[in-house]
Amino acid sequence: MKPVDYPEPFGDLTRELRRLPGIGPRTAERIALWLASSKDARPLELARALRGAAENLRACTACGFFATQERCQICQDENRAGREICVVEQATDILPIERTGFLKGRYHVLGGRLAPLDHIGPEQLRIGALLARVKNEGVTEIILALSADVEGEATTNYLLELLKPLPITITRIAHGLPAGGGLESADELTLYQALSGRRQI
Amino acid sequence: MKPVDYPEPFGDLTRELRRLPGIGPRTAERIALWLASSKDARPLELARALRGAAENLRACTACGFFATQERCQICQDENRAGREICVVEQATDILPIERTGFLKGRYHVLGGRLAPLDHIGPEQLRIGALLARVKNEGVTEIILALSADVEGEATTNYLLELLKPLPITITRIAHGLPAGGGLESADELTLYQALSGRRQI
Repeated sequence: MKPVDYPEPFGDLTRELRRLPGIGPRTAERIALWLASSKDARPLELARALRGAAENLRACTACGFFATQERCQICQDENRAGREICVVEQATDILPIERTGFLKGRYHVLGGRLAPLDHIGPEQLRIGALLARVKNEGVTEIILALSADVEGEATTNYLLELLKPLPITITRIAHGLPAGGGLESADELTLYQALSGRRQI
Repeated sequence: MKPVDYPEPFGDLTRELRRLPGIGPRTAERIALWLASSKDARPLELARALRGAAENLRACTACGFFATQERCQICQDENRAGREICVVEQATDILPIERTGFLKGRYHVLGGRLAPLDHIGPEQLRIGALLARVKNEGVTEIILALSADVEGEATTNYLLELLKPLPITITRIAHGLPAGGGLESADELTLYQALSGRRQI
């Protein structure tokens, strides 16, 4: 006799949920149970949102932030041209910085940081695109705003070596970030202090 | 000027993810970032699984387990008729019991437990359906397998009062030391229950 198991649609949903980052087998099962049986659940709404994101979201061809057109909202704003470029690791680092109100310029998303153990080298990051922007966009300053951990430091130093020959001010955000903490866990004030305390290097 | 925010499809996805149980705002954003930008992400596969679950999954009309037809796999198996009914709180409690290989009969999903503070009373649980099954299915034994916490105990006691008048054996799963658990790691209540539930060997 076939051993008892969840019907295919439930097992299928649990397997797909388990692939999400930070979701273990138990959490996936709990979420699937909720989606399949709670009156508050809106599985079709979530499916629609996933489809919408998959079909309409793209990376801004200039900075790498989320966009629905070729350029993101920030790169479309000509008032932000010819100022600073703030280099961040990932697209979700941008809004926390934006909310401090400090930055008048634009951003550049590297798409990660150097991590040799994970086979992420310079060619996996959007470094060439950054150098091209520096040359073409009349940028006044490069602000390096990477995480304050070992890999972030290594990436900052690597970028510094590349950017130093260029006739441009290069700064990094101050070490107001708690050690080991990524940008995504910093509060607004910490981020503001880190931005305003940046030092020329 | 409009403040910078995520494009609508990203915000929409984050909002829907945040509605899932146990997913906070930061986790939702992290998962949305992964879904929107990781090469490993399969947002359309997840959307398909959600749609499949929403359209094809239903509760077995007899026991409440997940089913794709009117009766679940267990209730369709006539070899399991006329034996025990194991009463559990939710559908995901069934497979762990099933994997022990102990139970030869069927299950009954209550759909929760008595929790007056959450406005869950007897009429919110599938108790009438349980009584009807006991009368109609020629059941030999009712095994109460609810959680070993205050609300689970209260629900067990409530069901016991209802079932006692019926000419049928009623049991509850044993409470005691978990397998592999040492005496030193057991709390006082567990030890008390292990002692008072001792069996002659």
